[in-house]
Amino acid sequence: MESILSKSAIILSVCLTGGAIAASTESAMADSKWGADDQLGAANLMTSERVKAAAGLVTEGKVYSLGMTVGPDTPAFPPRSLSVTVLQPNQNGNSGLGENNFTYNDDIFMGWLGIGSQIDGLGHSGIDHVYYGGRTYDDFAPASGLTELGLDNLPGLVGRGVMLNMAAHFGTDMVEEGVAYTDEDIKAAASAQGVELREGDVVLFHSNWMELLDGENPDPERFGAAEPGLGVSGAEYLAGIGVMAVGADTWGMEVVPAEEEGQAFRAHQILQPENGIYILENMDTRELAADGAHEFLFVLGQARIEGAVQMIINPIAIR
Amino acid sequence: MESILSKSAIILSVCLTGGAIAASTESAMADSKWGADDQLGAANLMTSERVKAAAGLVTEGKVYSLGMTVGPDTPAFPPRSLSVTVLQPNQNGNSGLGENNFTYNDDIFMGWLGIGSQIDGLGHSGIDHVYYGGRTYDDFAPASGLTELGLDNLPGLVGRGVMLNMAAHFGTDMVEEGVAYTDEDIKAAASAQGVELREGDVVLFHSNWMELLDGENPDPERFGAAEPGLGVSGAEYLAGIGVMAVGADTWGMEVVPAEEEGQAFRAHQILQPENGIYILENMDTRELAADGAHEFLFVLGQARIEGAVQMIINPIAIR
Amino acid sequence: MESILSKSAIILSVCLTGGAIAASTESAMADSKWGADDQLGAANLMTSERVKAAAGLVTEGKVYSLGMTVGPDTPAFPPRSLSVTVLQPNQNGNSGLGENNFTYNDDIFMGWLGIGSQIDGLGHSGIDHVYYGGRTYDDFAPASGLTELGLDNLPGLVGRGVMLNMAAHFGTDMVEEGVAYTDEDIKAAASAQGVELREGDVVLFHSNWMELLDGENPDPERFGAAEPGLGVSGAEYLAGIGVMAVGADTWGMEVVPAEEEGQAFRAHQILQPENGIYILENMDTRELAADGAHEFLFVLGQARIEGAVQMIINPIAIR
Amino acid sequence: MESILSKSAIILSVCLTGGAIAASTESAMADSKWGADDQLGAANLMTSERVKAAAGLVTEGKVYSLGMTVGPDTPAFPPRSLSVTVLQPNQNGNSGLGENNFTYNDDIFMGWLGIGSQIDGLGHSGIDHVYYGGRTYDDFAPASGLTELGLDNLPGLVGRGVMLNMAAHFGTDMVEEGVAYTDEDIKAAASAQGVELREGDVVLFHSNWMELLDGENPDPERFGAAEPGLGVSGAEYLAGIGVMAVGADTWGMEVVPAEEEGQAFRAHQILQPENGIYILENMDTRELAADGAHEFLFVLGQARIEGAVQMIINPIAIR
Repeated sequence: MESILSKSAIILSVCLTGGAIAASTESAMADSKWGADDQLGAANLMTSERVKAAAGLVTEGKVYSLGMTVGPDTPAFPPRSLSVTVLQPNQNGNSGLGENNFTYNDDIFMGWLGIGSQIDGLGHSGIDHVYYGGRTYDDFAPASGLTELGLDNLPGLVGRGVMLNMAAHFGTDMVEEGVAYTDEDIKAAASAQGVELREGDVVLFHSNWMELLDGENPDPERFGAAEPGLGVSGAEYLAGIGVMAVGADTWGMEVVPAEEEGQAFRAHQILQPENGIYILENMDTRELAADGAHEFLFVLGQARIEGAVQMIINPIAIR
Repeated sequence: MESILSKSAIILSVCLTGGAIAASTESAMADSKWGADDQLGAANLMTSERVKAAAGLVTEGKVYSLGMTVGPDTPAFPPRSLSVTVLQPNQNGNSGLGENNFTYNDDIFMGWLGIGSQIDGLGHSGIDHVYYGGRTYDDFAPASGLTELGLDNLPGLVGRGVMLNMAAHFGTDMVEEGVAYTDEDIKAAASAQGVELREGDVVLFHSNWMELLDGENPDPERFGAAEPGLGVSGAEYLAGIGVMAVGADTWGMEVVPAEEEGQAFRAHQILQPENGIYILENMDTRELAADGAHEFLFVLGQARIEGAVQMIINPIAIR
Repeated sequence: MESILSKSAIILSVCLTGGAIAASTESAMADSKWGADDQLGAANLMTSERVKAAAGLVTEGKVYSLGMTVGPDTPAFPPRSLSVTVLQPNQNGNSGLGENNFTYNDDIFMGWLGIGSQIDGLGHSGIDHVYYGGRTYDDFAPASGLTELGLDNLPGLVGRGVMLNMAAHFGTDMVEEGVAYTDEDIKAAASAQGVELREGDVVLFHSNWMELLDGENPDPERFGAAEPGLGVSGAEYLAGIGVMAVGADTWGMEVVPAEEEGQAFRAHQILQPENGIYILENMDTRELAADGAHEFLFVLGQARIEGAVQMIINPIAIR
Repeated sequence: MESILSKSAIILSVCLTGGAIAASTESAMADSKWGADDQLGAANLMTSERVKAAAGLVTEGKVYSLGMTVGPDTPAFPPRSLSVTVLQPNQNGNSGLGENNFTYNDDIFMGWLGIGSQIDGLGHSGIDHVYYGGRTYDDFAPASGLTELGLDNLPGLVGRGVMLNMAAHFGTDMVEEGVAYTDEDIKAAASAQGVELREGDVVLFHSNWMELLDGENPDPERFGAAEPGLGVSGAEYLAGIGVMAVGADTWGMEVVPAEEEGQAFRAHQILQPENGIYILENMDTRELAADGAHEFLFVLGQARIEGAVQMIINPIAIR
């Protein structure tokens, strides 16, 4: 993939490789704990007990909108782009519909769904063309839309949200790019911040990285060139706990450049094809961090577009 | 607007009209109770008290996904259409990124945002080209996206959800097209179903109309040709209460054909430009109705796309 | 229209105005010399005699491609933009179709058709919402595509092409922005360059403006901020001759800023709604100019997309 | 590829296969007669001598538009689709730009470029992921657009056009699906119709298949389900002659189902990756056939969109 150096592009230089998926990994993927035909992965953890308990976390009635504004200038992984056009169909030169003169604006979206605040459905990340449940492209990914693992299958994600403030953990205003969150970091941050990670949780990491987009000294090039984020041991630790989703306030959720040279998005692979865990990117966790809100009710209702892989989202945290 | 008779089109025959907006109406619109520059309308009612109270409605931990699956075959108001394309950028003939062979699916959306389950932002409905807060096109609606009232402004909608089962009210399996919900109907249904409507509520009407899409005898043409729904007195009644949003399980929320011949989407005008109330269309209320769930926590986090008028949504109800 | 200052945007600051079309103009438009229902305008001049005579201009067998490369970075009139995506539908992880392993690339275009080298169909330019033949929007311009004057109606444009080298006329390497081509300029240039303008001609003006895009010192901002081009008296002169099309090597064909302050694209109005003449923009005339080729066979076969207003084109000149 | 049975879909059932390209074929592709880096293939044959001679074929001055109208209902190879939207940017509620009230229509295209009358650029057809000049995807086909073989490289195609009336050859009104044009058929048709095939020609086959789209008894399902067309020996014969392009009045140019069971688009492979010859599909040859016009000047100026694989076209024939 060619690096594209522009204000609104996410920059990445990793070589394309040949190679073959290890048989053990493939078999790991095929052996989903929720069965071979499972469409939901860790969303199976969304039990009524957990939902009820999460709702009990609402004590203030404060609502947090975790989705950022997403537009043509939002840094995007190349060649992703988008545009929105507003129009007034058939209303120019007349007073609209009916004697009551109903007029209206409509809008058209042209672009990629994996831009800005987004969910990676389980059909997004693979290992050498093998996906959650051991699926290959011919199994589920025709050009006309995913026939399995599409986001139309997912009712939403509701559960206990946990925010770990990694900037606080590292004692900095903003975590630097290339800093990986290891299992030990996660344990230490959770402990220091008085919150326990549990099965079925939605875990959100706060690095304050979004200040590079709209803070006092915005630097969108730096924002997209690299990022702090989840490391391999951290991903394995969260998968071991059995969380439902992992999110972060960066474009790719995991650390870039990778901890080990030559690796690319290894945490995505641990979470998605190997464990069926959802990924949430570009989550605006700043207000949660400012409030020291480490536990909350998390509610995501993504648009259920048929066959979609990713979706621009705006999850709601309530505490 | 030309009627387009096809499986996936919503059919409407109302004459385009000339005419002028009454001065009184325009002044009503300009006098928003939340001020001339207000961007949020009834979302201003989303107070922490109300949110906290709504969270208290969660007693079962059951999650309802109110968004339908939205795809190319979803009936749409002409000329709206959409397509989704899945692709694997730059991964054909190689094993992906890095030595760990990261491969991925991406997706492209081409189409209109007002299809299927959708929110009408306050920039959607107008009266003779005048919109909420007295705005005209030059004020806020360039082709490049709304500069005011865009859905990027809206953090989401969280509050007490109320479902009124109008099929039960009318003693039928499915309410017929052209049946208007009057103020009296709404009062009677609420009373019979043991639920009170309050300021700040999200009110959802269930008619069972979605059975025409995916029920035992689907009839998408009938689905799109007309619909039962909110009538003028009903809209005024809800606006008087000061609800935050009104939704329904039909494509247009309000009754079609209109109660009075020659009128088109008058309830939209009462709710949106005159009262700043959000509209939610194609809400799948069937499971709520089956459970007799009349009160619940309602959470909508729509994608915050810059300058967008409408958005495909999937609100979550929790009780 | 808001000015958008960016590398790839065409910049224009003219106030939006209210006003009413003069009755005389409207009646002029309605009185097309080819009848009220005419769809073709000056393309009616494409007679077999003229085509045969134009073919007789081919003496060298040299082919000129007048269309520029058009891509995402091509300066465009805001908010126009475009993107192209290449994909291999359903071929990742297999060897394609059939035992002969047929694989293929496909491509998706998302964007506006009025970018780069383009034809303005007769449905493009109007005077206060009135178009060629006296049509208003309700007559022919629904959002689903033009029902009249669409480029699907136009078989193509074939005829005698004439290139006038205005840089040579003004004795400069590149004509400056704001320089208008008057009737006297056109007569003088034609005379000095030994070419006569005739009814049915396709007249192309060369200013060397495209050097600002890909010449030695590219300056796309200057390219889009203004331009030399046809003036009002020039447009009237060409209309009087009865040419079939007028093209230029600039984004808007006519002079910007306008000769008279407060005017915007007046030459477009003279040519299109008042006289049914086609407009060709961003024609790369440099090689014609370098060869001193003032007469040639001109052949344009634009894609006949149903209901399209404009189209990206690549006319061919042969001499 | 899943077959999609709909009015506007082209239907094809050929199994996806595994397999490996024969070394001999790959080497044949790499050994283009125009060199390894060649971008133009048979368009190199467009010499001034041939162009001049072709212009000499114009004796009547009659213009033929070979491009069909292309719209949302045009049968397309799945999952290709398109839409066009007409809008009046920023002009609703005002009188347009300037004191002269300049108003205008614009249009947006969302869709695939390989629909209706189209050119297959040399980057379209491959053999097991290997393309003209021995290129693989990583060499030239990123998602952001072809970096080689894109239609922006092609100036156009101008030369001698030859129409062979295969319906006349087979003594029928319309050639049936599955009928292959062999080398012998082509020789016999050319001989009977008094026309010689030469190096550099653009050869168009007329079967009258387009009557299934807009004739007296339209049958778009039959149109897209199969087709008559070029066979393998015919393709080899034309490649041997060294033609510049091969076109036909069908959606895929070559015979479907293939002559040999299990083969898919083998003639595409012979023409494109193996010989650098352009393919033109859905050419409306009916008027040429009606006139018995077997020789003419052929002029194609396709839009030069950066990185595009295919393009909707409207070639012009002049005789």
